[in-house]
Amino acid sequence: MPDSLFPAPHPFLQHCQAALAQMRQEGRYRSFAALAKSRRDFPRYTDSTGRRITVWSSNDYLGLGGSDVLAAAATAAIEAHGVGSGGTRNISGNTPLHEALESELAALHAKPAALVFTSGYVANQAALGTILSSMDGNWHVFSDEKNHNSMIAGMKNARAKSIFRHNDVAHLDALMAAAGPGVNKLVAFESVYSMDGDIAPLAELAATCRRHGALSYLDEVHAVGMYGATGAGVAERDGVLDRIDIVQGTLAKALGCHGGYVAGPAEVIDFLRSAAAGFIFTTSLPPALAAAGLASVRHVKGATALRERHAERAARLKAAFQAAGVRPMPSASHIVPVPVGDAALCREVSRLLLEEHGLYVTPINYPTVPRGTERLRFTPTPRHDDADIAFAAQAVAAVLRQVGLLPNAP
Amino acid sequence: MPDSLFPAPHPFLQHCQAALAQMRQEGRYRSFAALAKSRRDFPRYTDSTGRRITVWSSNDYLGLGGSDVLAAAATAAIEAHGVGSGGTRNISGNTPLHEALESELAALHAKPAALVFTSGYVANQAALGTILSSMDGNWHVFSDEKNHNSMIAGMKNARAKSIFRHNDVAHLDALMAAAGPGVNKLVAFESVYSMDGDIAPLAELAATCRRHGALSYLDEVHAVGMYGATGAGVAERDGVLDRIDIVQGTLAKALGCHGGYVAGPAEVIDFLRSAAAGFIFTTSLPPALAAAGLASVRHVKGATALRERHAERAARLKAAFQAAGVRPMPSASHIVPVPVGDAALCREVSRLLLEEHGLYVTPINYPTVPRGTERLRFTPTPRHDDADIAFAAQAVAAVLRQVGLLPNAP
Repeated sequence: MPDSLFPAPHPFLQHCQAALAQMRQEGRYRSFAALAKSRRDFPRYTDSTGRRITVWSSNDYLGLGGSDVLAAAATAAIEAHGVGSGGTRNISGNTPLHEALESELAALHAKPAALVFTSGYVANQAALGTILSSMDGNWHVFSDEKNHNSMIAGMKNARAKSIFRHNDVAHLDALMAAAGPGVNKLVAFESVYSMDGDIAPLAELAATCRRHGALSYLDEVHAVGMYGATGAGVAERDGVLDRIDIVQGTLAKALGCHGGYVAGPAEVIDFLRSAAAGFIFTTSLPPALAAAGLASVRHVKGATALRERHAERAARLKAAFQAAGVRPMPSASHIVPVPVGDAALCREVSRLLLEEHGLYVTPINYPTVPRGTERLRFTPTPRHDDADIAFAAQAVAAVLRQVGLLPNAP
Repeated sequence: MPDSLFPAPHPFLQHCQAALAQMRQEGRYRSFAALAKSRRDFPRYTDSTGRRITVWSSNDYLGLGGSDVLAAAATAAIEAHGVGSGGTRNISGNTPLHEALESELAALHAKPAALVFTSGYVANQAALGTILSSMDGNWHVFSDEKNHNSMIAGMKNARAKSIFRHNDVAHLDALMAAAGPGVNKLVAFESVYSMDGDIAPLAELAATCRRHGALSYLDEVHAVGMYGATGAGVAERDGVLDRIDIVQGTLAKALGCHGGYVAGPAEVIDFLRSAAAGFIFTTSLPPALAAAGLASVRHVKGATALRERHAERAARLKAAFQAAGVRPMPSASHIVPVPVGDAALCREVSRLLLEEHGLYVTPINYPTVPRGTERLRFTPTPRHDDADIAFAAQAVAAVLRQVGLLPNAP
């Protein structure tokens, strides 16, 4: 089979080759580790040689993806309904399971309505894109500088956009004051920032939005299931659910499933349902994922002990790193980033941890984080036990010493 | 729970209300029928009252979504790996199943490589968007006027764009000649157009692309599994697989599963894998869907008898409509649209078919098709038997008479 289908070298092929060569040269060419997730043995995975690996980089934060609750719900739905839904929500792909899931998600976030998308990425891109192109585009959007790529994609064609300094409410306030009245304002931010692990001041952000009559749009994908009395996220924990207009979340992280959603006022959700191209023109989630998502939301509401264990595990990992001489980045959440600061070195540390210690931690390089801030990102789960944590702290310290990022022990 | 979370009526809420009111007034407000798909009894579904409905609007074109092949593969993968993948492909969400699926899809289309996305919509939007923003945007894209919304989304920010008349190769040729050399050209088109059921002249399109040194990008989502000796699509049927540069397809229609993909030259696929935001920043497909997709592609390659039965069913339905006095739109494929021409009437015909005859056919209104071309879109599957076809033809004729779209029988 020829590697190129073009009669003559096409400039785009040359561009692809050059771009890939540059990534290799910068040490940020991505090789995906092929790891099979183990349902009953999570956070253990199996690599291509059959070796058992402990994964520290899963966003299945609570380990629910392998739970009997989700597996049973998905399996029963496959038996009843098959695999694919076979259509968009409008064209025979709308099942009672999809509708029940949306009701449950709306209730979780104490909103009148919710809408499920095929992913959290699509939820952000489609919801923000549709809102900001409404009303003849008469919008000014204000975006936290560390917002996720999916929100940036949704704001790409906004007519007016201001970036406020990360979690800087005073800066946001000043930018909104400067924009003046007469334009519709929307402020987009996250609760838990996934690569740093810090948490936004939601109460102050919401109050500032209200003061300027701005719509608030909150991405809780790294908080849903884990924060708040019923797992609705940081807005619930901080008691501001009723002061956030639109909440976006995911089923694919702590809920252990797949898909994304927005929850908010009934008119807004119905408008998005009727107008968002990224919702209308795509096959709905398989019934089995709607069923598993529904089971997961219902389960996670009462999973207080699991949330407490999760927080305790994160604190213990941070303390173990400190005790071993490893300095994680400051984090107010369950996300524990360890700075490396160089793409090639980051990949090398990850490789050594995998090959010599049987631990998998993804190197986080550009474009996921800015160049110079490359890091390893640890996500402890309730399934990582004391021995896992002690072993990881020692292994990371040893590898960082090996590559010269930590001084040798005296 | 308050229906609005705003302290005062926000202009956006009023906009949503007005937009929804206008949709209702135009008869194109969408109410999704809640229908539970039956795995063993497909194309039978169950409505909210428990009534058994025959669905004529599923894109599970071959009925494979409910097959034992897919159900067994998905169920086994859930048992082994759980439900959610727990990460992006780069962050612990890459399993051997995902890699095997991509190899199988590449082989199906006789391309060196393939890349799986979370949906066909995302595949088009991300692949086209990433290609057209490469090389400093020095591209001129040529798009068939009937291309799907997902391709239009991917071409939205193209610096130069020309729309050629539907399937009009001479028009495309003239537009490319006028664009002149010195700009990189990409031509985007589909094989089977889903709302009309017509098929593009792929050999002529490919030859025209070659003559102008343009990259050809072919969407085969409504053809994969159904056309060609091994189900690779119309490009395989027409013997032009090696003259199309990039093929886009879906697992969510005839393959009965979920997700989308592109297949093409190795460098192009590796570049998209490394640069496409809609691929990088999103959770990978659940392992169970990768497993079911893999099983489906392997199965469909040899499913010649199923393809023949499918084509025979479509021909039989068209003939039955004609015999009953119903005039479907001309269609060269398995898609059988019946014109209505008015949104409210289209909904009414659909409602009557459902309530009085137990048949579900989605009304296809704007924005899925242009205003004035509203239609019912029938998609016969190998599971619709002779009695189903005879019953549907009589029921449609009766309802069209009832609403005055067909003259009363003499």
